[in-house]
Amino acid sequence: MSVTAAKGFQAAGIAAGIKQNGNPDLALVVNTGPRLAAAGVFTSNRVKAAPVLWSEQVLKGGEVSAVVLNSGGANACTGPQGFQDTHATAEKAAASLNAAGRDETGGHGAGTVAVASTGLIGTLLPMDKLLPGVDAAVAQLDVHGGEKAAIAIKTTDTVHKTSVVSKDGWTVGGMAKGAGMLAPGLATMLVVLTTDADLNAATLDRALRDATRQTFDRVDSDGCMSTNDTVLLLASGASRLAPEYGEFAEAVRAVCDDLARQLIGDAEGASKDIRIEVVNAASEDDAVEVGRSIARNNLLKCAIHGEDPNWGRVLSAIGTTKAAFDPDRLNVAINDVWVCKDGSVGEDRDLVDMRYREVRITADLAAGTAGPVVIWANDLTAEYVHENSAYSS
Amino acid sequence: MSVTAAKGFQAAGIAAGIKQNGNPDLALVVNTGPRLAAAGVFTSNRVKAAPVLWSEQVLKGGEVSAVVLNSGGANACTGPQGFQDTHATAEKAAASLNAAGRDETGGHGAGTVAVASTGLIGTLLPMDKLLPGVDAAVAQLDVHGGEKAAIAIKTTDTVHKTSVVSKDGWTVGGMAKGAGMLAPGLATMLVVLTTDADLNAATLDRALRDATRQTFDRVDSDGCMSTNDTVLLLASGASRLAPEYGEFAEAVRAVCDDLARQLIGDAEGASKDIRIEVVNAASEDDAVEVGRSIARNNLLKCAIHGEDPNWGRVLSAIGTTKAAFDPDRLNVAINDVWVCKDGSVGEDRDLVDMRYREVRITADLAAGTAGPVVIWANDLTAEYVHENSAYSS
Repeated sequence: MSVTAAKGFQAAGIAAGIKQNGNPDLALVVNTGPRLAAAGVFTSNRVKAAPVLWSEQVLKGGEVSAVVLNSGGANACTGPQGFQDTHATAEKAAASLNAAGRDETGGHGAGTVAVASTGLIGTLLPMDKLLPGVDAAVAQLDVHGGEKAAIAIKTTDTVHKTSVVSKDGWTVGGMAKGAGMLAPGLATMLVVLTTDADLNAATLDRALRDATRQTFDRVDSDGCMSTNDTVLLLASGASRLAPEYGEFAEAVRAVCDDLARQLIGDAEGASKDIRIEVVNAASEDDAVEVGRSIARNNLLKCAIHGEDPNWGRVLSAIGTTKAAFDPDRLNVAINDVWVCKDGSVGEDRDLVDMRYREVRITADLAAGTAGPVVIWANDLTAEYVHENSAYSS
Repeated sequence: MSVTAAKGFQAAGIAAGIKQNGNPDLALVVNTGPRLAAAGVFTSNRVKAAPVLWSEQVLKGGEVSAVVLNSGGANACTGPQGFQDTHATAEKAAASLNAAGRDETGGHGAGTVAVASTGLIGTLLPMDKLLPGVDAAVAQLDVHGGEKAAIAIKTTDTVHKTSVVSKDGWTVGGMAKGAGMLAPGLATMLVVLTTDADLNAATLDRALRDATRQTFDRVDSDGCMSTNDTVLLLASGASRLAPEYGEFAEAVRAVCDDLARQLIGDAEGASKDIRIEVVNAASEDDAVEVGRSIARNNLLKCAIHGEDPNWGRVLSAIGTTKAAFDPDRLNVAINDVWVCKDGSVGEDRDLVDMRYREVRITADLAAGTAGPVVIWANDLTAEYVHENSAYSS
């Protein structure tokens, strides 16, 4: 399933030895056509990893024949050598795929091979392991290889993440990795989506941006923005069907939404998934700003961890934004109990039951009709601290 | 010492019963003149506690005769009743001070009594305890009462914080409370500074704003902005000396800087004080934005806790800002080891010794001549999570 649920794709996932523990660390996704249309969305962090800089260039052409993804190293902040390594990876993949004669599209050029990396920032990749790994991955390409590819891109993920939506004769499927450094723009995530719908690059781009804006961009596990975020959508056209835009966009959004929820559910050290819904905002931008401010408030995240409905911390987070609101008209519910009404004490906070993993915070700005906007976050735990205080050691 | 180091001030600190554990919780600072000049800086959070709304009005007159401060409750998000309670506190203090005949300034009016509160948001203060407490504090006013006042405003503070600078015949002294929810604009802090210099309210205001901008506004323990932050500077004129502006402003800045460092040193659950210095920025605003972004990066804060010089997280934090810089020219030092040069791998990270409480991060933006700007932050620890997951329970 995963990236091979749609027709016209093959994938592989192998252990190339990039990770010292011998776990799978190299994935390859190949579009076997007949079409090679593609779109991509990348981190808005201004410090971009070499593979992001490379893949942004590839996507400008609107065609992606293959994607090479590695875990075990981010290849970020690695200077000219890092960029050369990404380039060499793309060249190697193109040469190896051509040698294997594995496509229907008239030969791969490095200029249509996207590259994505994830792992520690600031160390060069072991190219003596990675390049032979590309050959090994090409040799193992399979129309059922999606699951193995999804496993090979895991870093601190405890589970691999895949999702598929099938419609009348066409399919959108995908895989994701991400468990920390999750914040809008995007999260520390690598995502590859594939479809056999027969659509051009411009349509894919529009559907992908619509979807990520409402899904991955609204996942804010820990407020930290990565250097490597990459979301790709590849279309093979193998179904020979061109669905209507609305139907296709909804399928892409559904797959992204499912994967985004899986990222939050597997966030490093988290014990709670926090669903923040902002309603009655003056604008969607206001609602997003308020939702993110709540999502990033460390004191609130600690309180949620402690199952403490400390709504004052929600108000203090709202108060740091530029959104339109009157402090004396704010209402806040936690798990549907309106603990704050008109900016002051509301229903009895002891009525709030916070035993379950999902916690719902509703912020009513009483300032307009925009929303609801939903932002997903996680609590802050000692396990998060532990996991992230020892990551690179 | 503390607020009674300068001539013309009396203070008291008592246990009024606002805190259930019987610890001191009510402080009173009285300016006995001959002058009543004052300036104040308040939280920029748009959700402001009742005492902040009240004291902002008081300060518009440029005169403060007395300050009532309580711990054990923030009186924030408490609606009209909360504001009435603050008003009643000021009225009570004025009446009690007048009845005691304790001033040289012709009688106290409630309109010159500032009020400050700290503690849990969203609960009304126990006025049946607080108002008799004001009488008790007036009865205990003393020219050596500064220490007791500083103790009475503690919440989760493990130590009380005071600082004094004495010059040729005049003095600036002060007290502060704050241990969490520390972020610019300001920190969750209550600060009262006093001086016996003979200066008018406009001069005090200028000196106070210059000082807070460079000190309290650059303390960012946990990125969370409070509803109650208040910094007051009261002048009695009792020295009959009017120092030059530059000399006076430097004394105020030195006291604020000392108190700000004490806040960081006592931050909830922290094991490291992180000194972030941004140099070679295009502007001071850029330097502050970059410093704050680094200060608030949870993953970096965890890494520092783990004594892990994970400089990639510094770069990813810089990359989220709008400051002018070229990613390929950024340099970062941790404890003076330049682990990142020209946006890539620099000196050996194993050379970084992070055993001590103070950790220094230097971010060289190579974009101009502004700075250095120093932002102070803390690490993120399991103890911080523990302390803040159970605060209101």
